[in-house]
Amino acid sequence: MRVLKFSCNLIFLLLCCATCASSAAHRFPGSVIQPEKISSSAVSKPENELYKTKYFTQILDHFNYNPQSYHKFQQRYLINDTYWGGAKKNAPIFVYTGNEGDIEWFTQNTGFMFDIAPQFKALLVFIEHRFYGKSIPYGGDKEVAYANSSTLGYLSSTQALADYATVIIDLKKNLTATDSPVVVFGGSYGGMLAAWFRLKYPHVAIGALASSAPILNFENITSPYSFYNIITKDFRSQSENCYQVIKGSWQKIEDTAKQHGGLDLLQKSFHICKNAIGANLLSNWLSTAFIYTGMTDYPIPSNFLNPMPAYPVKQMCKAIDNTEHGNDTFAKLYAAANIYYNYTGHAKCFDLDDHSDPHGLDEWSWQACTEMVMPTDGSNEESMFPVSEPSYSDWAESCHDYYNVWPRPNWITTEFGGHDIKNVLKRFGSNIIFFNGLRDPWSGGGVLEDISKSIIAIVAKEGAHHVDLRYATKEDPEWLKDTRSREIRIISQWLFQHYTSLLHLSR
Amino acid sequence: MRVLKFSCNLIFLLLCCATCASSAAHRFPGSVIQPEKISSSAVSKPENELYKTKYFTQILDHFNYNPQSYHKFQQRYLINDTYWGGAKKNAPIFVYTGNEGDIEWFTQNTGFMFDIAPQFKALLVFIEHRFYGKSIPYGGDKEVAYANSSTLGYLSSTQALADYATVIIDLKKNLTATDSPVVVFGGSYGGMLAAWFRLKYPHVAIGALASSAPILNFENITSPYSFYNIITKDFRSQSENCYQVIKGSWQKIEDTAKQHGGLDLLQKSFHICKNAIGANLLSNWLSTAFIYTGMTDYPIPSNFLNPMPAYPVKQMCKAIDNTEHGNDTFAKLYAAANIYYNYTGHAKCFDLDDHSDPHGLDEWSWQACTEMVMPTDGSNEESMFPVSEPSYSDWAESCHDYYNVWPRPNWITTEFGGHDIKNVLKRFGSNIIFFNGLRDPWSGGGVLEDISKSIIAIVAKEGAHHVDLRYATKEDPEWLKDTRSREIRIISQWLFQHYTSLLHLSR
Repeated sequence: MRVLKFSCNLIFLLLCCATCASSAAHRFPGSVIQPEKISSSAVSKPENELYKTKYFTQILDHFNYNPQSYHKFQQRYLINDTYWGGAKKNAPIFVYTGNEGDIEWFTQNTGFMFDIAPQFKALLVFIEHRFYGKSIPYGGDKEVAYANSSTLGYLSSTQALADYATVIIDLKKNLTATDSPVVVFGGSYGGMLAAWFRLKYPHVAIGALASSAPILNFENITSPYSFYNIITKDFRSQSENCYQVIKGSWQKIEDTAKQHGGLDLLQKSFHICKNAIGANLLSNWLSTAFIYTGMTDYPIPSNFLNPMPAYPVKQMCKAIDNTEHGNDTFAKLYAAANIYYNYTGHAKCFDLDDHSDPHGLDEWSWQACTEMVMPTDGSNEESMFPVSEPSYSDWAESCHDYYNVWPRPNWITTEFGGHDIKNVLKRFGSNIIFFNGLRDPWSGGGVLEDISKSIIAIVAKEGAHHVDLRYATKEDPEWLKDTRSREIRIISQWLFQHYTSLLHLSR
Repeated sequence: MRVLKFSCNLIFLLLCCATCASSAAHRFPGSVIQPEKISSSAVSKPENELYKTKYFTQILDHFNYNPQSYHKFQQRYLINDTYWGGAKKNAPIFVYTGNEGDIEWFTQNTGFMFDIAPQFKALLVFIEHRFYGKSIPYGGDKEVAYANSSTLGYLSSTQALADYATVIIDLKKNLTATDSPVVVFGGSYGGMLAAWFRLKYPHVAIGALASSAPILNFENITSPYSFYNIITKDFRSQSENCYQVIKGSWQKIEDTAKQHGGLDLLQKSFHICKNAIGANLLSNWLSTAFIYTGMTDYPIPSNFLNPMPAYPVKQMCKAIDNTEHGNDTFAKLYAAANIYYNYTGHAKCFDLDDHSDPHGLDEWSWQACTEMVMPTDGSNEESMFPVSEPSYSDWAESCHDYYNVWPRPNWITTEFGGHDIKNVLKRFGSNIIFFNGLRDPWSGGGVLEDISKSIIAIVAKEGAHHVDLRYATKEDPEWLKDTRSREIRIISQWLFQHYTSLLHLSR
């Protein structure tokens, strides 16, 4: 059976990836071009110290009872009991609700949980999302699991949440840790899952830290223009010139490509190493760099998507504003792109048509074609990206052509809500932190205001995509230290409540 | 394709029905012998006044995206807009979350909603549960829908809840009634669905009246002996003699059946009209009468399961205690059974092996074999029924033999919780009323204590199975009037909260 691989045109409509579409709906930090294999981050630790790998025998379909639903698969989870206070002391369990990719990658980029485990004496568990990493149904055979909609059909957020509930309940039972409180953590799609998990499974988790979780980025709840506008603001806030150069570049690239010898010029200017070159490919390659750099505009050097310096947007604009290149727009843009694609300086040239997927994120396109229909593809006059209008129908057609599936764009709000969230949740639910950094384009779909006394929004003006979940470093700015301190205080309150209830029960 | 029909032995293990098993797990008011067709109740109104019938095109599987999941079926709902104040006034919508049977039957037995609609200016909607009544997938073809686990697999509580959310959201959209608050109502399994709906879909319903909803009757949360013990208490509280006669009858029947001519004697004593006679069949026939009479021990004449007088348990014990029959136990029991099976006096004889299912409840057995594993089959020394120990493994084997399906006995608590409910929900969720009548054997699995200021238990010592949901009558006792008044007051508070929030929003 064939493995699904997007053609570039299709990715154009479905996702924003390295080589395609600035006018597309966006994935979370995704399959971006990797000019070199990602080396271990300066702040991540070797695997053997971090966790042990375990597998849980999971059921294929929780909500259906036909024979196929009883099929089993091995779901991976990573566990660290170094700091755990143990079942007898009802010490807490911190669970990461895995995203759309390899759980090891997310674990290594969620240092916050390791940082706080000792003070909470917490057991750490990171559960991989079905159909990603090594948690592949059909005997782990990706060829089969990804073959078509009959098998991919079981990849959905509701199934994933039920998986997490099942794993956690079983794990607590095996550890005889029934009274150990569980707090769930997640960033990005994992943050959405953490928030939804607290809302749907309050009997399993006493609280959730949902970092950069755009749970409102559905239907018409938030603006489809916010994504590009936030990236635009990231760059424009550095310098007006930076914004103007980028905004003017798309037309310049298109014009150049049409000229005799123009493609050669572009290829040379941007050090493109293969034959795949074209105005669209190049524009998308640059857009991707701007988008993901804005998204991960961390105040410290990082290696989440690619190795990058601290404040990479500032660095990009510095390169663009650099007078050394005079009026050579392409040289400026190339220097900026290098911040994202080649910060280590090892790459000699770039493949615009690279579909490598080092973190195993490709199946997000299936989710985006079924339920995770998150409109982000509007680009208006203010945007530094080419103007484009959101088009759901084009998207839906592409999904149908490619996967033979029609999206259900209203499902997420039917299942999880989102409309009028403040009113709905102000007297329902509790113990959720929504963290958002306003430099993160996904913050446009996030919860940015407190909903109640215990459903709290923490907003960091200078923050990027789930920056709070990263390892603490000595270089962290004060606002980031404050953010994490506040999260720790709130989680402590939840635990205090839980232990107080236990005391009352045992009296 | 064959239509599934239980053999008696299987029903013995699966359900308590008319002709089988006193030592079985129980269905809600179920497929009991109907010696004559149920006539319209004195308190129900003709259909054409009560509601209009509509259909919604529903998706087969909400949680899965394989090709079959996109199949559509027609889901029935009944609607009454006589009293509705309209969308412009944001007048409320009261929705009944349909149970395991024909929605018309439940509608006709939920007079409370009709009684209170005028004062709330409420739109009334009664949604039928998938796979029951006329809401049958596969083109409405029961032969196909009930054929095997491949088709029945889509019959589950989570799918039903998602159906209700989908219908309500669509209906509100069509009525341009987005700001009309929805309150859900349900009795028995419908009450469980109402409570779970408020917990899982707080963005769709602002509150739930869950009447006689045994949401705790799973795993080991409540005692498997409570069901029989409550029925026993119902009868014993009338008279010690009544209890003793019933308790002693099972052995007497068994002994008689073994004697020469004993079966003839039993057949004659109990006016059995066909050849199907045996100690087990007869015992089960009597047990059913006691169980369902206890369950529906209403203080007024009713016709829910069968036409019955007010306080039918009292009437049964009166018949048993009647000195007219001297020591003739069988004559006493026959007189008691007549209260349940033949209150109109039209039946001349009884068919112990009757599998008629006038309310279309048979598919409950599928639900009980998959997720609704509700242990009620323990009968201890105190019980007036034969002693029996709960046996999950027998049950599971039977389900596998019959449906080729293994139950998932831990699923409901995984999905909806139940353990430690007071602690879990005291700071999570709001706006649920749990009504329970302590004469109802299902009250053993109900929520009998307030959980928080807005998750409230109303307990009526004299109440039977969702008696509060029945039409008000002049004969209603004070406690019943008080119960309904309190429910109305609480629902008014929910609505007041909602309208106050709307006012704040529009400012």
